[in-house]
Amino acid sequence: MRNYFTIAFFCSALVLCAYCMALAEGPGEWTAENSDPRNMGWMQGVPPSPDARITIAAGDFFNFPKLRWTVCNIRDLLPTIEVSRGLGAPVPLDYVPHHEFADSRAEIDALTFTPMGSDQEMTWKASLATNYTDGMLVLHKGRVVYEWYSGCLTEQGKHAIMSMTKSTVGMLAEILIAEGRLDDTAPVIDYLPELAKTAFGNATVRQVMDMTTAVVFDENYDDPKADIWIYSAAGNPLPKPKSYQGPVGYLDYLLTVKQDGKHGKAFGYKTINTDVLAWIVARVTGMRYHEALSEMLWRRMGAEQSAYFSVDAAGTPFAGGGMSAGLRDLGRMGLLLLNEGVINGKRVFPAKVVESIRQGGDRDAFVKAGYDTLEGGSYRSMFWVLHNKNGAFAARGVYGQTIYVDPTAEMVLVRLASYPKPKNALIDPTSLPAYQAVADYLMTK
Amino acid sequence: MRNYFTIAFFCSALVLCAYCMALAEGPGEWTAENSDPRNMGWMQGVPPSPDARITIAAGDFFNFPKLRWTVCNIRDLLPTIEVSRGLGAPVPLDYVPHHEFADSRAEIDALTFTPMGSDQEMTWKASLATNYTDGMLVLHKGRVVYEWYSGCLTEQGKHAIMSMTKSTVGMLAEILIAEGRLDDTAPVIDYLPELAKTAFGNATVRQVMDMTTAVVFDENYDDPKADIWIYSAAGNPLPKPKSYQGPVGYLDYLLTVKQDGKHGKAFGYKTINTDVLAWIVARVTGMRYHEALSEMLWRRMGAEQSAYFSVDAAGTPFAGGGMSAGLRDLGRMGLLLLNEGVINGKRVFPAKVVESIRQGGDRDAFVKAGYDTLEGGSYRSMFWVLHNKNGAFAARGVYGQTIYVDPTAEMVLVRLASYPKPKNALIDPTSLPAYQAVADYLMTK
Repeated sequence: MRNYFTIAFFCSALVLCAYCMALAEGPGEWTAENSDPRNMGWMQGVPPSPDARITIAAGDFFNFPKLRWTVCNIRDLLPTIEVSRGLGAPVPLDYVPHHEFADSRAEIDALTFTPMGSDQEMTWKASLATNYTDGMLVLHKGRVVYEWYSGCLTEQGKHAIMSMTKSTVGMLAEILIAEGRLDDTAPVIDYLPELAKTAFGNATVRQVMDMTTAVVFDENYDDPKADIWIYSAAGNPLPKPKSYQGPVGYLDYLLTVKQDGKHGKAFGYKTINTDVLAWIVARVTGMRYHEALSEMLWRRMGAEQSAYFSVDAAGTPFAGGGMSAGLRDLGRMGLLLLNEGVINGKRVFPAKVVESIRQGGDRDAFVKAGYDTLEGGSYRSMFWVLHNKNGAFAARGVYGQTIYVDPTAEMVLVRLASYPKPKNALIDPTSLPAYQAVADYLMTK
Repeated sequence: MRNYFTIAFFCSALVLCAYCMALAEGPGEWTAENSDPRNMGWMQGVPPSPDARITIAAGDFFNFPKLRWTVCNIRDLLPTIEVSRGLGAPVPLDYVPHHEFADSRAEIDALTFTPMGSDQEMTWKASLATNYTDGMLVLHKGRVVYEWYSGCLTEQGKHAIMSMTKSTVGMLAEILIAEGRLDDTAPVIDYLPELAKTAFGNATVRQVMDMTTAVVFDENYDDPKADIWIYSAAGNPLPKPKSYQGPVGYLDYLLTVKQDGKHGKAFGYKTINTDVLAWIVARVTGMRYHEALSEMLWRRMGAEQSAYFSVDAAGTPFAGGGMSAGLRDLGRMGLLLLNEGVINGKRVFPAKVVESIRQGGDRDAFVKAGYDTLEGGSYRSMFWVLHNKNGAFAARGVYGQTIYVDPTAEMVLVRLASYPKPKNALIDPTSLPAYQAVADYLMTK
């Protein structure tokens, strides 16, 4: 039984990685190079030797350094559900001409910046390894100026985007609002009466979208009875032990959430808000969340790969963090955010969607959450808004995932990564100033 | 523990469905219409009500009528591995002009034939429901003349192809032979020395390809110690109980197979031959099987969807029957077989590949296996060769899957289905004469 729960917990660590800090081992002597899955030999050979295998049973597939293989291969280990790209021809991204591309890549590699809290300059090129980067894409004025793959990722692979999944839900909710199908000032129960007796019952859709709900959701990993473990066990798609009495599936868990204070006062980054929002999207559209994402975004933007979600035992995709996608398709998502809903000359959704996200959330409410590397920022519609001089905003996921949109520099930057620790505050010091350096460079072009 | 094995067995029934006769319930009062998953409501609603759910835990997802949902949704329930189509534009299939298409569909629907062992005529249209057909595609001279979806399948969905998976392995092996990279007269141990002490040690590659090896592989479902259950448990990707002592993964099982008589004397349809052949393909190409299939076939033929495989805990795709794919992509495979390796004017593999398959296997060896509905036929390179007047040959999978190639009528026919019983001999009487009727009709065009 104990063994089962070990497996269940680690599995949950995968589907709930925003929360698995306690499970990750420190980097120690691990560098980006010596932890590269190609060098580690994970799953190489037919069959791979037992010590080269990464399995569900071993329970450590999301521990570093195995993490660096797993982020590209979640479907090999767990049930997943497809976000179809449809059947048509993908719309290729535009690239700067070949000779310019080589130049721009070399010039960006050579850019230097000063990491936060440091007085030592670092090159862009060095920052890639420092941040255990698996994929990096930079678009300027709609054209690719930089593209780089490493570790487990190739241009034909898919990478876990972790909590960037949340931003897809925020986008869909904003689209429904712009189309007049969803009212963000309405209480959640207008859409989900089944949540009447929960903390969400008297929250507004907007409070859920901006994570200013006041909900009991304890993420103390040292306490085996903490809510996070109950949520993890609920979402685990594998068969539960006979003695299991808890909720089955994410949505079943949401029915149990209790209120803790007054909604709308403070930002609190709690994944369960996203799963409520995805449920609302499902209810309004009459589609399961992954189908809505396919219909409303993935098929329309010319995606070149289908994406996928991890899924619970009730067939609910994990909207809080379970999506995997290709690097360039995330670049397409970024272009839609930069260009206010237009890609390849085609409007995919109303400009209002991005206007709403970009304006940011309640900055006073955000201060209380104490994000040192994001001082002065805010959170709106499942996006992080920097409120910096360039008006940048971002989707962010643990272990270093980002889609960073800089409207002033007309830049979209996508990074996929497998940093040893699930703490973006450790990665931001060598990331945010680096992104600004690229933005400054592109503004001279 | 008992409970675990129940789950393990049923799960294995999924990945080894060629063998799950004993598990399937009879059709009883079930018709194609009342068992249609859309009418049953499986997995509808967010979340679906408990009695509308199909789960791993319940252990019955491959029982009829749930089977009819599961065949289109295996990845939602189990770990799977992608056969990438690549990133380019798919090559659309050619269709007869729109007005002709409506006519040809109506004409084919109205065709009549006499089922084997019957004196009652049946229409083609009626045969679709009789055989619990989920998808039907007919191509004539390279153009689609008939296309039909029902049950769980849509043109954007993927369906379990069961033992038709084997035929992909046979094709790849024939390609390697034609390219001079694989010698089918050589002993298996030339490629897989690790099999030296097994039944396969002194078999030739050809004997494996044509399933004329003499191997101990007991498929008696009533005996819980039968080999089939050991193989099933080995291939089950879910964590094994602590007390489990058996092989882990399909390939680990293959190391234990003992000989039973002399190779080359009789045809014996035993799935383990295919997994040996896929292992040989992996060894020769230096790729995992699903990667080789992607590189050698799926990317080259203009596939419009990636396909996927169920996978064991060692990351080995189940080559014996674990693939799911789209209807039209199977049509592309059929066109390559009809046109000796050419599709859309492009040669994908040498003509020799199809010449070898089409000539058929040892008909005397085949007789001994006693396939009543395939009298006079043979088995070669994981294909069924009918040796009928039209020279037809086919990939076949349990529950009614087929790619049927008729070179004389220049016809390719693909059927995906979810028949209540895993016994193609029950489906052939209303299928093979129906296919011949369509071929006869097309030859008049």
